Amino acid sequence: MIIDGRKIAREINAKSKQRVATLKARQVTPGIAVILVGNDPASRIYTRTKHRLAQKLGIASTLYHFPADVDQATVLRQVRRLNQDDQVDAILVQEPLPGQLNNEEIVNAIDPAKDVDGLHPLNLGRLFAKQGGHYPVACTPRGIMDLLDRYQVPLEGANVVIVGRSLLVGKPMLALLNNRNATVTFVGRHTKNRSELTRQADILIVAAGVPSLIKASDIKVGSTVIDVGINRLSSGKLVGDVDYISVLPKARLITPVPGGVGPMTVAALMSQAIDLAEWRRAAGQYLVG
Amino acid sequence: MIIDGRKIAREINAKSKQRVATLKARQVTPGIAVILVGNDPASRIYTRTKHRLAQKLGIASTLYHFPADVDQATVLRQVRRLNQDDQVDAILVQEPLPGQLNNEEIVNAIDPAKDVDGLHPLNLGRLFAKQGGHYPVACTPRGIMDLLDRYQVPLEGANVVIVGRSLLVGKPMLALLNNRNATVTFVGRHTKNRSELTRQADILIVAAGVPSLIKASDIKVGSTVIDVGINRLSSGKLVGDVDYISVLPKARLITPVPGGVGPMTVAALMSQAIDLAEWRRAAGQYLVG
Repeated sequence: MIIDGRKIAREINAKSKQRVATLKARQVTPGIAVILVGNDPASRIYTRTKHRLAQKLGIASTLYHFPADVDQATVLRQVRRLNQDDQVDAILVQEPLPGQLNNEEIVNAIDPAKDVDGLHPLNLGRLFAKQGGHYPVACTPRGIMDLLDRYQVPLEGANVVIVGRSLLVGKPMLALLNNRNATVTFVGRHTKNRSELTRQADILIVAAGVPSLIKASDIKVGSTVIDVGINRLSSGKLVGDVDYISVLPKARLITPVPGGVGPMTVAALMSQAIDLAEWRRAAGQYLVG
Repeated sequence: MIIDGRKIAREINAKSKQRVATLKARQVTPGIAVILVGNDPASRIYTRTKHRLAQKLGIASTLYHFPADVDQATVLRQVRRLNQDDQVDAILVQEPLPGQLNNEEIVNAIDPAKDVDGLHPLNLGRLFAKQGGHYPVACTPRGIMDLLDRYQVPLEGANVVIVGRSLLVGKPMLALLNNRNATVTFVGRHTKNRSELTRQADILIVAAGVPSLIKASDIKVGSTVIDVGINRLSSGKLVGDVDYISVLPKARLITPVPGGVGPMTVAALMSQAIDLAEWRRAAGQYLVG
């Protein structure tokens, strides 16, 4: 069975639109601020996709576009200004940033209550610690959890293998699945027996950024395969990290690329921006430190 | 080969004593404040062990001992007072806390720069994100990393299985080993095929709190076995989570209980309290948020 990310994303977006309308009736318009540096073509496309969806849902979206050679102090000043701006509920710094910028310092400067990407270490730590209360979580893993739940994939006691250990996908994915009592194996470039490990996975999540890294021989019959990769081939074709055609008949559930995880990430981002707007206004519910 | 935790802990403690002497020559005495609630016998023993070692090393150690029925506000007030106290470099809240107290709120209230147990979500998040700069890390995993390094156990690409997913041991252990490019599998109570997984481990770390949970048939020949468990049998005997006698001939390296991980934890705690004293005085080096 093919997981229809577009359909579920549409449902989430429809709900987001209603939630924005409810907030607007209370004179609140959720606001997203996006910081984009330079002219990376993929980043510009992602940024535009987010901006258009925000507008469609009634979320105020502002883009702060800096030249590629902007200095650290300028970006930090912008982040701090957005932290103070009561119209802004969600701050997003589009990665990758050019080399002269200190990514870590910029992420750490974002108000954790406005950290819509869930990348601030305080939010990541709360997730990893399985703390209670409200805090944002990285949007791609959040979207994947939604997919797994909608398709009723059992998580407790399931053997999950995550290929790719990035801060934006692999690490929060590990935390979310561990918090649901899955048994998680975390696989990276240095793993010696990757195929042996992936073949044991009831649920395989691949976020490696390598076209067709996972073949049919790397998966377990009847498993659930979530492909986070979006790679553009020289032919122009978009493919995932999973060799879709060969894996499809062996998997029980699989996400296509495009139309799987991608639309869920943007839907989760918007949904979480609305969460942040609601949480910030429910005084005392968001406790940091 | 049996890992001699006592010997390595002695070496670390000797170094700590020198470091304290150096600080004292600069009119700085590192200070630890321990908050103990109630009369749990094990907690009282741990607290006394820490206090004695601190004294031996020249670290100022103060115990704040509250009755078992203390309320949340009183503990929080004490934590905040210690946050403000310039004589205090390291704050430790001895767990477990009685049921009326909100553990999470208390940990979140500790100044991350004084969080000697590395339990504050900001510190846990920085570790999980593999951030640069100085921040504290949970002491038992820190001690275990020291043992693995002293015995030159290769970590990069090694298959590691961690049994037990606690905040104090399992989770930071996972982060530390992942940051060294080990392939980590995180096993808990809900894992269905625990023995199958542990048998694949080049390095097996057991922190489950179940006497003799791991038998010889659960381990790989030639593996490194780290036993974090300290369980007192009804006979009064202390045993680990690993069935030491049967596992010993099959492992390449193994920690005994007692005398393995235990002494390393306390040594790491003292060493980290001195780190915190040094970092706080090196202005600007400890950047939070």
